[in-house]
This record gives sequence, structure tokens and C-alpha cells, in this order.
Amino acid sequence: MNTRQEKDSIGYVDVPAERYWGAQTQRSFTNFDIGGQLMPREIVRAFAILKKAAARTNAELGVLDRQKSDLIGRVADEILAGELDDEFPLVVWQTGSGTQSNMNVNEVIANRAHVIDGGKLTDADRVLHPNDDVNKSQSSNDTFPTAMHIAAYEILIKTTVPGVEQLRDTLREKSDSMADVVKIGRTHFMDATPLTLGQEFSGYVSQLEHGLRALRNTLDHLSELALGGTAVGTGLNTPEGYADRVAQEIADLSGHPFRSADNKFEALAAHDAIVEAHGALKTLAVSLTKIGNDIRMLSSGPRSGIGEIVIPANEPGSSIMPGKVNPTQSEALTMAMAQVLGNDVAINIGGMNGHFELNVFKPMMIYNFLISARLIGDACRSFDANCARGIEPNRKRITEHLNNSLMLVTALNTKIGYDKAATIAKKAYADDTTLKAAALELGYLTGEEFDAWVKPEDMI
Amino acid sequence: MNTRQEKDSIGYVDVPAERYWGAQTQRSFTNFDIGGQLMPREIVRAFAILKKAAARTNAELGVLDRQKSDLIGRVADEILAGELDDEFPLVVWQTGSGTQSNMNVNEVIANRAHVIDGGKLTDADRVLHPNDDVNKSQSSNDTFPTAMHIAAYEILIKTTVPGVEQLRDTLREKSDSMADVVKIGRTHFMDATPLTLGQEFSGYVSQLEHGLRALRNTLDHLSELALGGTAVGTGLNTPEGYADRVAQEIADLSGHPFRSADNKFEALAAHDAIVEAHGALKTLAVSLTKIGNDIRMLSSGPRSGIGEIVIPANEPGSSIMPGKVNPTQSEALTMAMAQVLGNDVAINIGGMNGHFELNVFKPMMIYNFLISARLIGDACRSFDANCARGIEPNRKRITEHLNNSLMLVTALNTKIGYDKAATIAKKAYADDTTLKAAALELGYLTGEEFDAWVKPEDMI
Amino acid sequence: MNTRQEKDSIGYVDVPAERYWGAQTQRSFTNFDIGGQLMPREIVRAFAILKKAAARTNAELGVLDRQKSDLIGRVADEILAGELDDEFPLVVWQTGSGTQSNMNVNEVIANRAHVIDGGKLTDADRVLHPNDDVNKSQSSNDTFPTAMHIAAYEILIKTTVPGVEQLRDTLREKSDSMADVVKIGRTHFMDATPLTLGQEFSGYVSQLEHGLRALRNTLDHLSELALGGTAVGTGLNTPEGYADRVAQEIADLSGHPFRSADNKFEALAAHDAIVEAHGALKTLAVSLTKIGNDIRMLSSGPRSGIGEIVIPANEPGSSIMPGKVNPTQSEALTMAMAQVLGNDVAINIGGMNGHFELNVFKPMMIYNFLISARLIGDACRSFDANCARGIEPNRKRITEHLNNSLMLVTALNTKIGYDKAATIAKKAYADDTTLKAAALELGYLTGEEFDAWVKPEDMI
Amino acid sequence: MNTRQEKDSIGYVDVPAERYWGAQTQRSFTNFDIGGQLMPREIVRAFAILKKAAARTNAELGVLDRQKSDLIGRVADEILAGELDDEFPLVVWQTGSGTQSNMNVNEVIANRAHVIDGGKLTDADRVLHPNDDVNKSQSSNDTFPTAMHIAAYEILIKTTVPGVEQLRDTLREKSDSMADVVKIGRTHFMDATPLTLGQEFSGYVSQLEHGLRALRNTLDHLSELALGGTAVGTGLNTPEGYADRVAQEIADLSGHPFRSADNKFEALAAHDAIVEAHGALKTLAVSLTKIGNDIRMLSSGPRSGIGEIVIPANEPGSSIMPGKVNPTQSEALTMAMAQVLGNDVAINIGGMNGHFELNVFKPMMIYNFLISARLIGDACRSFDANCARGIEPNRKRITEHLNNSLMLVTALNTKIGYDKAATIAKKAYADDTTLKAAALELGYLTGEEFDAWVKPEDMI
Repeated sequence: MNTRQEKDSIGYVDVPAERYWGAQTQRSFTNFDIGGQLMPREIVRAFAILKKAAARTNAELGVLDRQKSDLIGRVADEILAGELDDEFPLVVWQTGSGTQSNMNVNEVIANRAHVIDGGKLTDADRVLHPNDDVNKSQSSNDTFPTAMHIAAYEILIKTTVPGVEQLRDTLREKSDSMADVVKIGRTHFMDATPLTLGQEFSGYVSQLEHGLRALRNTLDHLSELALGGTAVGTGLNTPEGYADRVAQEIADLSGHPFRSADNKFEALAAHDAIVEAHGALKTLAVSLTKIGNDIRMLSSGPRSGIGEIVIPANEPGSSIMPGKVNPTQSEALTMAMAQVLGNDVAINIGGMNGHFELNVFKPMMIYNFLISARLIGDACRSFDANCARGIEPNRKRITEHLNNSLMLVTALNTKIGYDKAATIAKKAYADDTTLKAAALELGYLTGEEFDAWVKPEDMI
Repeated sequence: MNTRQEKDSIGYVDVPAERYWGAQTQRSFTNFDIGGQLMPREIVRAFAILKKAAARTNAELGVLDRQKSDLIGRVADEILAGELDDEFPLVVWQTGSGTQSNMNVNEVIANRAHVIDGGKLTDADRVLHPNDDVNKSQSSNDTFPTAMHIAAYEILIKTTVPGVEQLRDTLREKSDSMADVVKIGRTHFMDATPLTLGQEFSGYVSQLEHGLRALRNTLDHLSELALGGTAVGTGLNTPEGYADRVAQEIADLSGHPFRSADNKFEALAAHDAIVEAHGALKTLAVSLTKIGNDIRMLSSGPRSGIGEIVIPANEPGSSIMPGKVNPTQSEALTMAMAQVLGNDVAINIGGMNGHFELNVFKPMMIYNFLISARLIGDACRSFDANCARGIEPNRKRITEHLNNSLMLVTALNTKIGYDKAATIAKKAYADDTTLKAAALELGYLTGEEFDAWVKPEDMI
Repeated sequence: MNTRQEKDSIGYVDVPAERYWGAQTQRSFTNFDIGGQLMPREIVRAFAILKKAAARTNAELGVLDRQKSDLIGRVADEILAGELDDEFPLVVWQTGSGTQSNMNVNEVIANRAHVIDGGKLTDADRVLHPNDDVNKSQSSNDTFPTAMHIAAYEILIKTTVPGVEQLRDTLREKSDSMADVVKIGRTHFMDATPLTLGQEFSGYVSQLEHGLRALRNTLDHLSELALGGTAVGTGLNTPEGYADRVAQEIADLSGHPFRSADNKFEALAAHDAIVEAHGALKTLAVSLTKIGNDIRMLSSGPRSGIGEIVIPANEPGSSIMPGKVNPTQSEALTMAMAQVLGNDVAINIGGMNGHFELNVFKPMMIYNFLISARLIGDACRSFDANCARGIEPNRKRITEHLNNSLMLVTALNTKIGYDKAATIAKKAYADDTTLKAAALELGYLTGEEFDAWVKPEDMI
Repeated sequence: MNTRQEKDSIGYVDVPAERYWGAQTQRSFTNFDIGGQLMPREIVRAFAILKKAAARTNAELGVLDRQKSDLIGRVADEILAGELDDEFPLVVWQTGSGTQSNMNVNEVIANRAHVIDGGKLTDADRVLHPNDDVNKSQSSNDTFPTAMHIAAYEILIKTTVPGVEQLRDTLREKSDSMADVVKIGRTHFMDATPLTLGQEFSGYVSQLEHGLRALRNTLDHLSELALGGTAVGTGLNTPEGYADRVAQEIADLSGHPFRSADNKFEALAAHDAIVEAHGALKTLAVSLTKIGNDIRMLSSGPRSGIGEIVIPANEPGSSIMPGKVNPTQSEALTMAMAQVLGNDVAINIGGMNGHFELNVFKPMMIYNFLISARLIGDACRSFDANCARGIEPNRKRITEHLNNSLMLVTALNTKIGYDKAATIAKKAYADDTTLKAAALELGYLTGEEFDAWVKPEDMI
């Protein structure tokens, strides 16, 4: 491999000749050969927005040449366009402040700008200094948390919320279209009084509605940006008015209502906004697990399960059992949600362990957050497209179950009292007969009364 | 032990003669000899409110005699006054719907009412039937989740929020009173640029402010009551208008803004409101862990630690090391918060595992919720009273640390650039000398410039 | 309340006149009004064993009067007999070293011994000094972890293992007695090829066998005792030979094979043995959840579920639905196991957060451990006695399901190939007919061949 | 994109023309566009071993042509050599049995073999059938868990254990080489009695030793293979003697002591072996977090922290603070361990949720397991190479701390009693003087006695 020498405050390092990154990226690449999980591209993208916004603000406030600012902006645009994806080779398991990924961005921008500007990567003097220019008025300690919030906010708005909404909409349609399908209810996994399939599905809709509301409640905290706090939150080395102005630039560039955090000390030392927002994600994960399990179980069978709904048969279910169809979308969904619940614990542990002016579990926290946010959005879309939309009631089975149910006896509570009603149900069960037969044999009511009082369609 | 016989729909059971509970309570007591954790008293109390409200509503809607309603209300008041505490012997690890605790309340009310009414516990006929009267227009499936929300809401308002607010207020006072104490910052647990102790503490205040806001955001979902859904959410066996009216009664009796849940199917089958609200509690736990750890570490020493603050010496710290003082309130706080984070996982697992029309992890979920809510409130109050209020800066140590710091060099970035500044810091470290000496020796600036540019009080 | 004055190295404190505890207990009682969870009685009991063993060893090694040693032993015996239970009022949420509970024991022993010796609690001079005598050759830092291991080991042997073994034995009997019951299998919650009920249950037996083995694998680490390490692990202030000898005394008194930890520094600073052993407990919790869920689902119905087994009807299942029977033991079991999984996270967080020579999450860790160990033991016993023993196959339902199954077609794979077999199954499903009818119609094989090849009893 | 048509039991699908995969892989690729996390390469590799072993065994037992078996073996070898990596495009979030990845392997082997055999991908008839030949005597339900155990066992032996051992060895060397460095101890993060740096590090060594032992204890369960159970554990469609023989083949091919699981029903329906082994991994994660934190804190400073050890300065620590050095390896290590603890919860949830004859959280469980196992191994190696090996004591700082310590007073307990010793320490602290000066002023002992009794080097 051809290399060139790059230098940082520690000394010289060999870097692949054609790469834009510099000494510090290379050191991290060498020193942290762990796991292989790359710093998420969403973070690189968020950094590009941030660097462009900071450069503009620095220029406007007179601490950076306009030409330098423009160069930074041009490279940032290339990053956003995905043209420099290979220039960000660092993994999540690096310094906990994300300094090395911040410097990776700084170095790539400085070096790429130098080339755009007509220079060569081997030039000793370059048009931009990664620290003094690209990182101007910044520290990793405020840029990385800013990138975290940008990336988190964006993925929630672009992936998570639309995915959940899409599934919610389909479930609502199903709830409406199955509003007349009276079926047996089940509590404790046991036969209970009836409801409609539409009502059953309305519960799922309500869960997702509440979950979306909970998630939206967390956006306000996420909209606070640390930028302007620099090293420890005091804003050392930033020009007057910088923090608010750069937050506005980021809001403009991203299209999201970001603002400067009122308290920069919190914003560097803690990531409670991430913990809080992931708390809403895990709530959605809990809801989606319930929904996924219900669909799995309602569609179970085809002959010896519950079988009250039919789901699409998207693929052969078994490599050995011919003709088998499985609730694979429920499986993918619930596996993904288990992951979200695991991620929640990792994020909690990260969030707990900030010390003094800095939390140094940043890359791990945002890595897990982004995975969760994407999994929820993607899994909802997949479940919707490949399962939910195709759900149909199995009316034959539903009717059988409903008519067999002993729990229709509950309608008699207000007529003959709980104790006599219980006696009827127990007798019908013991004799393997119908409620009506048992009721008549016990003489608690007449056949006419039974027919008038025990009507599933009146019990919903 | 003297016993009497009680009967339920299964048959006869021996019950301690003097106890108000009946057959179903006794069965549960016998069949679930697990762990020993009693159903929380907050739930019993919430049930008393609920039973009184339901009785009133039933009377108003004409489905229950006014006299019966009054009797139910009288016993409910006795429960609320704590006079019947020994009558609720069941543990958390019972049926997952909490049916047995609902029946415990029904039986105690029915039997105690009978005695108030002049009857005897051995009478075959009694003035109230536990199911037909006390449980009228109810099911365990809607009462237990209602009791969960009443208890959860109440403990948050009465214990959690005031505890956190009390600590926040003290930390804010400390932040204000120490606003002038310039000290070294620390990032990565390493010396960094300065800030004030007041700024450091302002981060804690901001964390708790955000945490309280997050918690309050969850109250709306908690204010929805399942009551009126009965067995599966359809409201079978409830009179017209019951659900809204009973919710209003509960709101009146409790003083909290409860309302009837829009969707009763969710309210029985899922406890996302509990999961969501506990997500806010775990966020507070994360924040409080950071705060507790910082106080622990800032006060470390007394001679070989960081020692920048002094905390109250409340007790001898060691059984073997004489004169030792320890950050015991931090320890209690962080242990309690670890518990909250464990509880969060238990609650998540419970929340995931509802099936069809019912979640049957109810007692476990609310048990953990109430523990967490109390631990946060209590631990904040204890930490406040026994630690936070007594925190004082150790100005001598703070000044030593500040003056020694190599990171003051950061002020030179904008004057001589990052690279030269780094050379100064590294030289001072290697030579074990001061920044100024190293700077002058390197010839990067004059002594006057150094004094003018490197001023900790200008760096905050 | 009558009080007397007690003194410690900080000064005087008012203590309830009749209580044996002293100044430090009282301080902790006042300063840690948190949560209400008492230090587990198992820890108090373990401390009694430890104090008696230490006193004996000190006497044998000549650093404590024999008479003092005997007095300590006498009070320890009273504690073990449960006679002094009210003397240990401290909660879990205290100093993280458990110093205050160690001193609680020291104070109670010293004061009670003084009374046994004929003195009065108001005497200034007493026969034993809580630190110099009762705590001789000890520190909280080595006694508390020793008590943790004693208590943990004991509860595993006395409660957890027997409980799991009892359930395993019953499940094995059921597996044997149902070895001939051929039934439909289910994978993905969908109909699959057959197996016997006995085989299904043998999986549960195997899970518990492996779980017990995993748990026993952790006993070796738990058998290491920290005692003899004193303050930081060096054994300062202990006589020669003390550590091994006192471990032997504890082994003799407890009947468990304890030994002195090879490395006392680990034993104070980390509680990996607790983390490791709880890792085995959580594995059991995972297994038991599977088992509890399967029983819940296999017994579901009675008419519209799977219904292949019948479980005992121990109590009325519903306060509103007469005659309902629910899988309540499964519910209690799975709730308890969710708790164990939450506790696991709390323990992990505690275990991670030791610093330097001491972990100060000790009370929280052992509190959770003991709850988990008891819950597993108790829940297994309860599930066994009230559910597992009464499980019976529902042969009628099992036969119906088996005969209807489309997955019997799998037997044809090796005869006619997967693709043709799949065509048969899909046709039978689409036509709502039998496999045989579909097979014949397709002409893939003769009726004789079908009957000879598709025999459920040959497929197990 | 050029495509060809492929067929499975559901019908025809367009597949990229040059890809070896078939219809079922393509369906899964289309239907599960979730998250982007690929099925781990370790699983693909384990499948290659398994398919080769099954083919050999099938040939030996006479149910598969020797030529077909050889073809399968040849493609398996290509997979093991990494030549077909691009042929496995499926993600983790697919069917929970891993059926689609099993079929992906079956299809790739069948089609690639056909090409090796001289055929074309567009041929209708091919030399191997993915189900009837490549999957012969197998089901996804027994192959996927077998691949899980192969992959898990292998990564533990090849990556996890060597990584931990490497770090342990270095820490042991450090413990030995620093055996004479007497330093202040710290309990509760506060000054305590002395020990040596070697002793402090010996605790870390002991933790890792125990952790390795715990991990090795779990290998036995992992060495059990499900293969031979086929669809539900009964071994339907396998020839006599198959299970033991194929396990032996896998043992031979992999070099690990695999054996056929005694109970195949457990092996399909539960993954307790994975839960159990990950319980040991999380125990290691807990230990490594303690170690990483201690190193981070011991090296804190350089001037205003604890600073008793010096760690290598591998990279510039800050983008804004020149000359800053940070404990970045500790940060990467503790972040990675937080991930392991999160993964543990995901695995637990997966493990709990098996139903009847199959657990369908398989891909998620093994995905998390492999990440954890790799992170521990890699992070230990990185921490070792880039931090642990370079650790040096800062003797100057250590001596300062030691000489200042008030806790040396503990040596006086056995001479003058705890209470007088406490008075000395408290007086020295209050007067900001030395223990000796305070002791002499109090007149509790002579200067000679003090010098003779208070010797740090005798306190270790």
C-alpha cells in the first residue's frame, strides 16, 4: 500500500496515500481494532451539516475567512452526497467522546478542501488546518453530542415515525373493516367474553397512537444542541453570539427545529435526551411485541391452533415440512424489538456513567439509538407491507369458537347472579355440552330467556 | 387457629375466624406461598378509592341500592384510614390479572360491611355479595389496571416529583452560591479547561429539570382509566354512562385529573402507560446516578483524591479505619438508582407479554413501578437533607488544582494555534514545570502576553 | 419514646431505651429513610455465623479473651434463633459497603452481651467494644462480602436447588407417564410434525437439569470468603493464620464447604461471584419462563384454545366471568421470572461499579440476589404443587389435532420428495380436505402407500 | 439487472442472473428489508461445516450418493475459504428459525455445485435439490441451532478466551513487577489503608481468572448439537445412527469436542446454552468494566486527579485542548462492555420466548452472542496492546499520597483502640497536620511508638 506521512501534535504517521484522512484518524484506525462496527453513517452526515453550519457562522461572525468557510461547505456537501463514504473508517469502539471521528471529519474536510483548492495531499502547508479552521469554535465535546441529536432527531422523523404511522394506519383500516366480526375474547390465554376483531385491533392502534405521542414528547429535549459549549460547556474560544446562530444554521440546513441548549454543561456531561427518547422507543418496542405476538397467535394453525385470522403466505415456511406457512413477519418484528430492549440497557448504562464535564459513552449510545430507531421504522414497514395489509378474518373458525364459548354465560350475571351463572358454565364444561342445555337442565331460566339474554352480538 | 367456612363458586374453604377476607383470598394465600412480597399498600388504597367510586356510580345509575353503596363507601374509608391493613395478606406473585387481590378487596368489603350492618361473619346470607354488589359493573381486568394508574399517578405526584424538586432546588441554590468558584474542569476524567462550581452544578439542575418534564409528559397516559371496560374492554354488564362517570368520581376522590380511557382494549391488554412512565423514571435514575457519582468523586480524599467539595460527615465511615468519612448518601442514591434500572427491565418484560385481551403481568409491573417511584423520591430527599444541603467548596484545593492545570493552554489556541499550544503543554508536562515557563522557554509568546491571555476567570 | 444516649467516634446519639443497637445503627436509621426494604434477614443470620466464627478464631489465636468470645457466640446463637429480629432496623439503601449493618450487628452483640453478662444498657463501660472486640480482625469490607456469600450459598442450597429439583422430578414423572401420548408438534406456533407429550415434557426436564448444572458450577466461586482481607484486602490487623481458620469455622458452622478466597483484593472490590451465580439464576428464569408459557398455552381453552392438557382448577378465575379457570400458577411463575431478569440487570450495574479496593453496591446486589434465589425456589415449589402434579393430557383434543394435521405429509419427503409433498399439503389446505384425499386426487401415491407411510406413531 | 427465474414450492421468483442463491433467499431478501444487519459470517461458516458433515454422514449411511456428498463438500469448502461471501445477503431480522438462511446455504450449495458439475444456472434440472439433497436428514430447526453452537463455541475459543488471557497475562506481569510499590488504598473512593500496586492489580488478574473459569464451565452445554432432531426433535427422516455420527463429523471438521445433544427437544425449543454462556460473558463484561474504570481513574490527571499510574499517550486527546491525553482504551473497553450488558438482555428476552417445539428468536440471539464474544476478545487485545502493557507507576505521586494518608492510623487500632485512633485521625484532618503530630499532641503514644507502629510497608 502506498502511503504518505501525516502529522499531528504527537508526531508523524503513515497514511494510505490516496486517503483524505490524516494522522489522528490513522492512529484511531490502528489503535482500535475492535468489533468492526463502523461509526454510523448518520453521524458522519450529521457532522457534515454541523461543520458547514459552524463554518458559515464563523465566517459571519468574522473569525473565519469566507473562502475557508466556503471550502468547508463544499466538502460538507460532498459528504452529504455520499461521495466520501470510504473516508470514515473508524469504529464505534474508540474514544468515548467521539474525538477521533470528529477529527476524522476535520481531517477529511481539510485535506479534501486542499485538493479542491488545487493542492496535493503531500503538501506540507495546506489551505485549511483541521483544528484551527475546520474545528474552529468547536470541540469534540460539543460537536459529537450535537451530531448525536441531529442524527437522532432525523432518523426519528424520517424513519421511525413514518414506519409506525404506516402500520398504525393499516391496523386502523383493518379495525374498521373488521368492526362487525364478533369473536371470542381471550383473557389469561383462556376463552372469555366476546368482542369484535375490529375492537381487538383498535387496541393495537391505540397503543401505537400513544407510543407516537410519547416519542414526540421527547423531541423537545433532542432539539437542544450542545454546540457552542466547546470543551467543558463554557463556550471557551467561541465568538459572541455563536451558539444561537450556529443552532439556527443547523435548523435551516436540516429542516428540523433545533435550538441552542439552555445548559451546555448538561449537554456535554449527560445524554439524558438520548436516554429519554430511547425510553419512548422501548415503549414502542413493548407495544409492537404485543401486537406481533397477537398476530402470530391469532393466525396459528392452520388446523390445531387458534386460527382466527389468516396472514399472507410469503415464503415456504420450512426446509423439511412441506406446505408449512409461518408468521415470519411477527418473528422478525419481535426479534427486532427484543434488540431494542437490549439496546435500552446499553444506553442506560452509558447514560449513567458520565463523569464531571463529559460523558464518554457517546459513540456507543448513539450507535444503539440509531439501530433501535431504524429497526422500529423498518420492522413496522416490513410488517405492514408483508403481513398487516393482508390480514383477513377466518370467519368460519371465528364462528365456531364463538358459538362454543362457555364465557357467554357472563351475560347472565345481571340476570341470575354470578354464582348460578358459574354453576351453569361448570356444568356445561363437565358435561361437554352447551350452556343452554346446562342452563335448562339446572332450571335456572327458560330457553326463551336464554336466547334473549345470551347474544354475543349484544355483548360487545 | 379458629376458622370459619367460606364459600366461592368452587366450594368451601376454611378461613381464620376473625378475618374479613373470604374463600378466594384464602385460596390465593394458600396456593401462592411465594417470595413474601405483599401486594403494595398503595394498590389496596387505590382499590378502596375505586370501589367507593364504583359503588357511588352504580347507585347514581340505579343499578345498586343506595344503602349498599353507602356501606361499600364506609368500608372503603376504613381501608383508606389504614384500619384494615391486616386484611390484605396476598403477595405479588399471584394471578397475573390481580383477580385475587380484587376479590380480596371485594370480600373484605362485603364481610366488613355485613358486620357494620350488624351481621356476623358466620352468617350464610350477607348484606353484600362480593361479586354481584361490590364488584358490580367491574371486572378484575378493568379494576386492577385502574388501581395501577391511581397508585402510580399518586406516588409520582406525592413522592417522586416533590423529592426530585427538593433536590433540584438545593442544587440550584448551591449552583448560585458557588457561581464565583472557578475550578478546573474535567473531561475523560482528565484535567480540562476551567469552569465554575456553579456551572458544574447547573448541569445537575438542568438534568433534573428535564427529567421532571419528561416525567410530567407521561402523566397524561397514566390519567386514562380502564374502568368501564370490564372483562375484555367492551364494557359488558355496565350501565349506560358508567365509564365516564366513575372516572370522574375517582378524579374527585383522589384529586387527580383522571378520565376514562378512550380505548379500553388497550387499557386491559397492555400497560404501555406504566412502561412509558417508568421510562421517565429510569431517565431520572440515569441522571441521579451521574449526580451521585460526581458528588462522590468531587468529595473524594480527604488527602489523596479530588477533594474539591466537602460533604457532611454523618456517621463513622468504617468499622476498622478510624476517622474515615464516606460519601454514603451517594452510595445509597446510586444503589437505589441501579434498582430502578433493573426494575425497568422487569417492567418491560411484563409489558411485552400481554396476550389478546389481557396482560397478566399486572401485579409485578405495578410492584416494580411503585418501588422505583418511591426510591427516587425518598433517595432524593435523603440525599438532599443529608448531603446536598451541606456541600461546601474546598477553596484551597480548588485553587491548587486550577493553578496547576496544563489545560489553561487552550486559551492560546486562538492566539498562536493549536499545534504550538500543544507543544507548550507537552513541554510543561515533560519538564514538570508551569505553562508559562514552558511557553517562555519555547519563545512562542512573551510573559506579558501569557498573563494577559491565560486567565482562568476569563475562560468560563 | 424513652431513649438513652449512645456514643460513637462522632459523638452522642439518642437511641430507643430498650433497643440493643447503638449509635451507628441509630444514625443510619435516621439518615437513610429510603424505600423501606429491610436488610435481608438472611444477611443478619449470615453475620451471626460470621461473628461467632470470628470470635472463636480470635480466641483460638490468642487475640480475644475466651470469655468475650463465648459471649459473642451466645448472642450470635440468639440471632440465629430469631430472638433478636427486631434489632436490625436498617434498610438496604445505606452505605454501599454495608458498614452500618455490620456495625448494627456489632452493636447489638456488644450490648446484648453486656446485658447477658449482668450489665445495663445505660452503663458507660461495657463488657464488649463493638469495634475492638466484636469486629476484631474484621472490617465491614471483608465481613459484608463474607455474609453475602454465606447467605447466597445457603439460599441456593436450601431453597433454590430443592425447588427446581422438585419441579424437575414432577416433570420427569409426567414425561414418563405421558410417553405414549402422540400429539401434534408446533413450531413457529404453527402445526408441525408429531411427537409425544412425554417428549415435549422431556425438553423441560432437560432444561432444568442443565440449569441446575449451571447453577452448581457457580458454587465454587461463591464458596470463597473475603474474611481475613479486612479493610482493603491486605489482612491488616489480623493474626497469623486467621483467614483460613475463620473460613473453616464458618464452613463448620454452616455446613457448606467455604474456604478463604485466594485473592482478597478481588473479594472486596468486586462481586463477580454474585454476578456469575446470578447469571445462572437468570438462565433458570429463562428456562422456567418457557416452561410456564408452554403450560399456559397447552392448557388454553377450554374450548377455543389449544387445550391439549388440563391443569388443576385451584380458584375461580374471574370476578366477572363465572366458571372461568386460569393458568394462574404459570402467571405467578412467569411474573417472578421477569423479576429475576430485572434483578439481573440491577446486579450487573452494581457489579460494574466497584472502584479501586471496594465495591459499594453490596447491599443492593445481595438484596436482589436473595430475592431471585427465593423466587425461583418458591415459584417452582408452588408451580409444582399447585399445577405440575395435576397436569393431565386431554386425549380427545390431542387426537383431533393429530388427525387433522397437514404436517404429517413430512413423512412423504423421503418417498416422493419435498416438492410433491408440499403440493399435497397445500391442496389439502386449500380444499379443506385430508392429506390422503389430496394425495390420491393428485395421483402421487396409492391409498395403501399413504396408509403405510403416513403413521404418526412412526414419526416420533 | 439481469435476472433468471427460480422456483420454490410457492412459485417463481426473479433472481439476479449471476447469483447462486435461489427463490427462497430472494423472497427473504425482498420481504425483510430491515435494519441492514447481515446474518453473521460466523454462522455462514458454521453452516458450511455442518452441510459438509451432514453430506458425509448421509453418504456413509447410504441415503445420499457419494458423488452428491462430494459436491456438497466442495462448495462447503469454497464457503469456508470465503469465496462465496457475497452469496449470503440475508439479514438477521428474518424468520426466527433461521430457515431462510438455511435455505440460502442449501440453494447456494445446490446451484454452485451444479455449475461446478458443468451445468448452468438456467437449467431446469440440476444435480442437487436444495431440500432433498443438501438439506437431507436436516431441518432448519436442527441445523440453525447447530450452527449457533458451532459459531459460538468457535468464537469463544478463537477470540474471546485468547483475548482475555492475553490481558490477564499482562496484568499478572504488571502485578509482579509492581509488587513492591506501596500505595494508598481507596475504599468508597476515599483514602484507606495501604496496599501495593501489585496487590491492586492482582485483584484484576483474579477477576479474569474466575471469569475464564466461568466461561469454560459453559462450554459443555454449548458442545451439545441439535442436529439429528430435524423438525421437532424426534429425528424424523434421519437414518439410524445419524445424530451421533454427524456430531462426530462436525467435531472432526471443527476441532472442537462437539457431541449430539442428549435431548433434542430442548435443543430446538430453547437456547439455554446460549443464555448460560452469555451469562458468563456478561460476568466478564462486569469484571472488565471494573478494570477499565480503575485504570481510567488511577491514571487521571495529569495534575489534578489521582495520577498514580501513567498510561501510554496514543493519540492527541482533544480537538480543542492541546496536549491532552485521555484514557481512550478504557473508554472503548467500557463502552464495549456496556454493549455486552445490553446484548445480555436481548438474549434473555429471546431465550424466554420459545414456544412449544421451537424458539424463534434464533438469529437475534446468536447475532448478539457473537458480537459480545468478539467485543470482549477484541477489546481485551486492544486494551492490552495499547494500554495495559505500557502502564507504569508514578512513584512520586504514589509516595506523596501514601505519606499524606490519615488512614495509616488504622495500624494503631490494636495498640490503642479504635476510638483513640479515630480521635487522632480526626484531629489531624481538622488541624491539617500529620497523624504523628496529632498523636503526640493528644499524648496517646510516643514518637518512637508511632514510628514503630505506623509503617505503611508493614500494613500490606
